[in-house]
Amino acid sequence: MIEISHADQEQIVLTAHALADAARRVVLPYFRSPGLISDNKLAGGFDPVTAADRAAEQAMRDILGRERPADGILGEELGATEGTTGLTWVLDPIDGTRGFISGTPTWGVLIALSEEAGPRYGIIDQPYIGERFEGGFGIAHYAGPMGGGALAVRDTEALAEAVLYTTFPEVGTLDERAAFERVSAAVKLTRYGMDCYAYALLAAGQVDLVIEAGLNPYDIHAPIAVIEAAGGIVTDWQGGPAHPGGQIIAAANAGLHALALERLRG
Amino acid sequence: MIEISHADQEQIVLTAHALADAARRVVLPYFRSPGLISDNKLAGGFDPVTAADRAAEQAMRDILGRERPADGILGEELGATEGTTGLTWVLDPIDGTRGFISGTPTWGVLIALSEEAGPRYGIIDQPYIGERFEGGFGIAHYAGPMGGGALAVRDTEALAEAVLYTTFPEVGTLDERAAFERVSAAVKLTRYGMDCYAYALLAAGQVDLVIEAGLNPYDIHAPIAVIEAAGGIVTDWQGGPAHPGGQIIAAANAGLHALALERLRG
Repeated sequence: MIEISHADQEQIVLTAHALADAARRVVLPYFRSPGLISDNKLAGGFDPVTAADRAAEQAMRDILGRERPADGILGEELGATEGTTGLTWVLDPIDGTRGFISGTPTWGVLIALSEEAGPRYGIIDQPYIGERFEGGFGIAHYAGPMGGGALAVRDTEALAEAVLYTTFPEVGTLDERAAFERVSAAVKLTRYGMDCYAYALLAAGQVDLVIEAGLNPYDIHAPIAVIEAAGGIVTDWQGGPAHPGGQIIAAANAGLHALALERLRG
Repeated sequence: MIEISHADQEQIVLTAHALADAARRVVLPYFRSPGLISDNKLAGGFDPVTAADRAAEQAMRDILGRERPADGILGEELGATEGTTGLTWVLDPIDGTRGFISGTPTWGVLIALSEEAGPRYGIIDQPYIGERFEGGFGIAHYAGPMGGGALAVRDTEALAEAVLYTTFPEVGTLDERAAFERVSAAVKLTRYGMDCYAYALLAAGQVDLVIEAGLNPYDIHAPIAVIEAAGGIVTDWQGGPAHPGGQIIAAANAGLHALALERLRG
């Protein structure tokens, strides 16, 4: 683990909030705008990229160029920039573009500061609601329209008592879907379509499990930081590190994680 | 159609906003509260009823008892009260209790003023975001964290360009699901799990279709009023009146409604 001084941690946190503030300013005027442009990034698939997405990442990169020029950057829209500190800013200016283009405030700005072994600090920001969830360096905190407070996962023990979130059936292969359905069949309630907001709700103690597949690293670094800071666990479906992306399970606690993992494996 | 004077319309609108304000005050302290109680209203199903739900309906009934004592009331929680005016207030204090108990700001307070033939005015309110959508008596308006403005549906012509929202796969029979899938296969994007918020987004010109089944009258009266005021159409899957509930399709315009209805029927 890279040694990061307390002063440096403070500067990282301030910079991350400045990034989130900048992204809010850039993105919000586009949200629910009638003229929203959406390209198809993947032929045959529906992966809209908006002008907002690109402009927000550029605004964040401009700040990093001034405040943290030696760190690397991995952004969803504008690719990877090498650094020299071993630390990389992992940015997804609009996670949940499907939600974004259909007007639902479930997309978010994802910002993480990561090293090779995984994220150290992260922010999930929902600009329209005005909610921000952050975790890392001893911080586990949210701020929203009703005020703010500490983030803490809940202690649900049984799958039969658990609330599960997912972006299935929108994503995933048939095999992945079948694995997900084995967990879904055992929980109290399965809900759909929340984008990255589901991870924030897990960190906030509102839901117990999030299961997804086909994630990119920039989709999951910030959620890992926020959820781990709140006391939760995020891994891949084999129980290994989640930060490379792919098949992801996030759980409120270790017991629930083990029970869900067992069912995912079949 | 019952004749309602302009002065009476104004009093109805003021009263409806007072109901929504009261429901916000009562419900919000319960939202994301760790001790949230949820009973199982339907044996075997998951239909949580919270203390918030009941308290909010009572608060709204108290206001109606003072301001509109001669009108009838149909509430989700506390049943039907006969009136003498031919007008009935149709109330669902928390539409989307699954969303409510899992922390997502997609539930809403639904308030409609209806006659036998259907709703005349309605409000969809999302207290946590602080968003209100209203329609009827010549009004089609929203107010939210970024300001307010006129509600207007969009003019999407082809299913291939349409965004569809639904609460499937959470609700519905297998036959209903199959009918839904025929529409879903033809649209650009299908999204899930938005509760009543999806109807508000249709009225706001953000999405094109909402298809659901198994609705109660109090789930759909307010959305009908808001969507019709914004220029959209809400019917059952046979093209008949939607206000009795059941299988519902809401569309941004008549052309899209006809195309989706054709596929729903198979």
